[in-house]
Amino acid sequence: MENKTQIQLEKLLQALVKHDTQQIDDIYEHVQTIDLAKEIEDLEDNQLEYLCNHIDDEKLAEILEESDEDLQVDIIDCLNNKRILDLFNLIPKDTIVDILGELPMGKRKQLINLMKAGDKKVIEQLLGYEEDSAGGLMTTEYIALSQNLTMINALKKIKEIGPKTEVIETIFVLNDKKQLIGTADLRDILVANDNVTLGSIMDDQVISVAPETDQEDVSLLVSKYDLTTIPVVNKNNGLLGIITVDDIIDVIQEEHTEDMLQMHGVNKEESLDSTLLESIKMRLPWLIVNLVTAFLASFTVKMFESTIEQIVALSATMTIVTGMGGNAGSQTLSIMIRSIALGEVHFKDCFPAFIKEIFLGIINGLVTGAVTGVIVYVLYGNFYLGIIICIAMIGNLVVSGFFGFVIPVALKALHADPALASSIFLTTATDVLGFFIFLSLANLFLPYLI
Amino acid sequence: MENKTQIQLEKLLQALVKHDTQQIDDIYEHVQTIDLAKEIEDLEDNQLEYLCNHIDDEKLAEILEESDEDLQVDIIDCLNNKRILDLFNLIPKDTIVDILGELPMGKRKQLINLMKAGDKKVIEQLLGYEEDSAGGLMTTEYIALSQNLTMINALKKIKEIGPKTEVIETIFVLNDKKQLIGTADLRDILVANDNVTLGSIMDDQVISVAPETDQEDVSLLVSKYDLTTIPVVNKNNGLLGIITVDDIIDVIQEEHTEDMLQMHGVNKEESLDSTLLESIKMRLPWLIVNLVTAFLASFTVKMFESTIEQIVALSATMTIVTGMGGNAGSQTLSIMIRSIALGEVHFKDCFPAFIKEIFLGIINGLVTGAVTGVIVYVLYGNFYLGIIICIAMIGNLVVSGFFGFVIPVALKALHADPALASSIFLTTATDVLGFFIFLSLANLFLPYLI
Repeated sequence: MENKTQIQLEKLLQALVKHDTQQIDDIYEHVQTIDLAKEIEDLEDNQLEYLCNHIDDEKLAEILEESDEDLQVDIIDCLNNKRILDLFNLIPKDTIVDILGELPMGKRKQLINLMKAGDKKVIEQLLGYEEDSAGGLMTTEYIALSQNLTMINALKKIKEIGPKTEVIETIFVLNDKKQLIGTADLRDILVANDNVTLGSIMDDQVISVAPETDQEDVSLLVSKYDLTTIPVVNKNNGLLGIITVDDIIDVIQEEHTEDMLQMHGVNKEESLDSTLLESIKMRLPWLIVNLVTAFLASFTVKMFESTIEQIVALSATMTIVTGMGGNAGSQTLSIMIRSIALGEVHFKDCFPAFIKEIFLGIINGLVTGAVTGVIVYVLYGNFYLGIIICIAMIGNLVVSGFFGFVIPVALKALHADPALASSIFLTTATDVLGFFIFLSLANLFLPYLI
Repeated sequence: MENKTQIQLEKLLQALVKHDTQQIDDIYEHVQTIDLAKEIEDLEDNQLEYLCNHIDDEKLAEILEESDEDLQVDIIDCLNNKRILDLFNLIPKDTIVDILGELPMGKRKQLINLMKAGDKKVIEQLLGYEEDSAGGLMTTEYIALSQNLTMINALKKIKEIGPKTEVIETIFVLNDKKQLIGTADLRDILVANDNVTLGSIMDDQVISVAPETDQEDVSLLVSKYDLTTIPVVNKNNGLLGIITVDDIIDVIQEEHTEDMLQMHGVNKEESLDSTLLESIKMRLPWLIVNLVTAFLASFTVKMFESTIEQIVALSATMTIVTGMGGNAGSQTLSIMIRSIALGEVHFKDCFPAFIKEIFLGIINGLVTGAVTGVIVYVLYGNFYLGIIICIAMIGNLVVSGFFGFVIPVALKALHADPALASSIFLTTATDVLGFFIFLSLANLFLPYLI
């Protein structure tokens, strides 16, 4: 079924063939560029090439900005170097850096060498930052003015620079040493008297980050202080760039997706669109890891085969203990992973929360264990089996609280993502220890059970 | 250990006692209001009352805006109705509605009745929307101007209304019937000729939402189109309000937290700060549900007790099949829940993805099953046990793919949150069917196993 944008794209291609610029402008005005970019992804190679080489720079630059990484590379491949540089003049520096990052090393160097000296320096500097750091996210299109400027001159500058920047609502204020000393709200500039200076109306409480700051920490600041933009400064408080809120939203989405997937041993690159082969490649390794841990649980049970041989009821009941442990543990785990991601966990004062998890294990274990004990007693007519399963349940829910808390904290301390396959580690602990506690108790009280 | 803001708050309280307004202003200028609000939460009741009744309206309004819900109620409780209404004049309407929503019904009605007729109407309308809908998120502080205004007049209006609005970068353009027909970028207004009209420079491609739109769908639009604000319109395209990006970030965080927690049967209200009793109340019910499902798995095993009695090795090996099924299923589950949350799942075309999951189950099951089969054969010296566990592994990984896909899709179709305790449902399926497949195969081939 064809959608609206698809039809518009077809019309656009026809208009390009006919060189009907009026029609092209018309179509272009009635679609969202991002929707158009999505449709362009599905074009044949020769159609894409025709489109890239016949649409004007401005329109192609917009498409390039809104495309995903694969399409950006495909578009660049259709163009000669001169055209690429023309397009680069029309898009923000952080997007250029993202595109360059996708290109083969040779092509990237070639393009950078062709740039104007000033651009070259900025791009090389931006390329030097980690992709997931503040430096990798920032753009250099912003308005920074001297604190000594009067309102009337500031407004003149804003009108001049405004069209080329990403953010206009916040003006960054610098002192004579080019250090960032405050921000001015465009609202305040518009209503202030013509002759007061920027320095006198600015807000000197600026929240800024260093270029090395991790993108997750940047997003926490933006979300905490409701910022729409955050400046990136060097050690001398010199303004290097700004990060805009739309990039922050992408970061938040990305980090959450990572957490959710990595927690269960899924590669963050995988999505519903991944091919069968890609999915196998990404999931099978973790399943093999999981196989090792599953065998650990199996060996634990095997140790007690002679006990189970004598009371076969243990075989059916032991799964209750491990099943409950796994689920109770993943309750703790998911709370911990979210709290760490939201920056709420501070190592020095998380001990009370840890103790709480242990008590939670005892109390929830006591309640569910008592219920289980009574049912098992009724089902199997064995009082001691009921007692043993109740004790094992308490033990395993304490184990699950312990590991549900410790696994993410330990991963964080090791500078690994706290979500990284936490579920698999947790299940190993609750399975192995759950079986062990229950079956060794059964072994101990064997005379009473038979 | 005292932090910087805590010390500032103490100084602030002392300055209030001394009525040293200069000192108060000074302190207030050097802290972030949200940090201050966090510290105020820890004040004694009488200290809070003193603070509320001695600090000026403007400062208290800022604190009120940045406070969390509990503190907002506490502050309101310290004030008389007249003062509350004075403060309400200083904060955005969406925040007022949030605060009113926290108050007891009687107090809420009392305050609304005391408001000016115009405000009362707006507030009552806003209160009518669901908290998690576009209407519940929107604010009525925006700039909307007629398309016929010239730039010079538009700028005059913007200067006038600007200080009272949340967003100034985007101006909403209305036609004579007060319908929203476009948006104008302040940047373009600043550089345009004085005598052109707003209508001629506006962008008529407006992405808007209805007040009933779910907040999750609003956040998807904002994130997809990189918006910093999104207008809310009624059926006649009349502008009702706008939603700002800071509220959208909160929504995204909230929805992700919900997904992560609900998936594992944790109430979305729970955090690391919840008391032991709160945590028990929120987690125990799900553990009881889980107990029922754990017994289901146990009953499945119990059905085969006579088989296990004859080959006790089944007891140790059966846990490998269920363990692997649970983990493979949660890989599928986490991908599905993320894809649904990101709006990537469309029912009509998700069939290929479903088929992919089934094939993934077969192939991953074949690989892990073959490995397991060989190891089991070596360990127990029983060729048929190896074959059976391999077949059971394939079967259970298909089951896990099936349920990992179907559970979230079914919950979504039932208009429930796809994450809602999905893990618990999934484990039930993979445990019960995993045990059943493996043990009934063993029962079938019993003569070869002994």
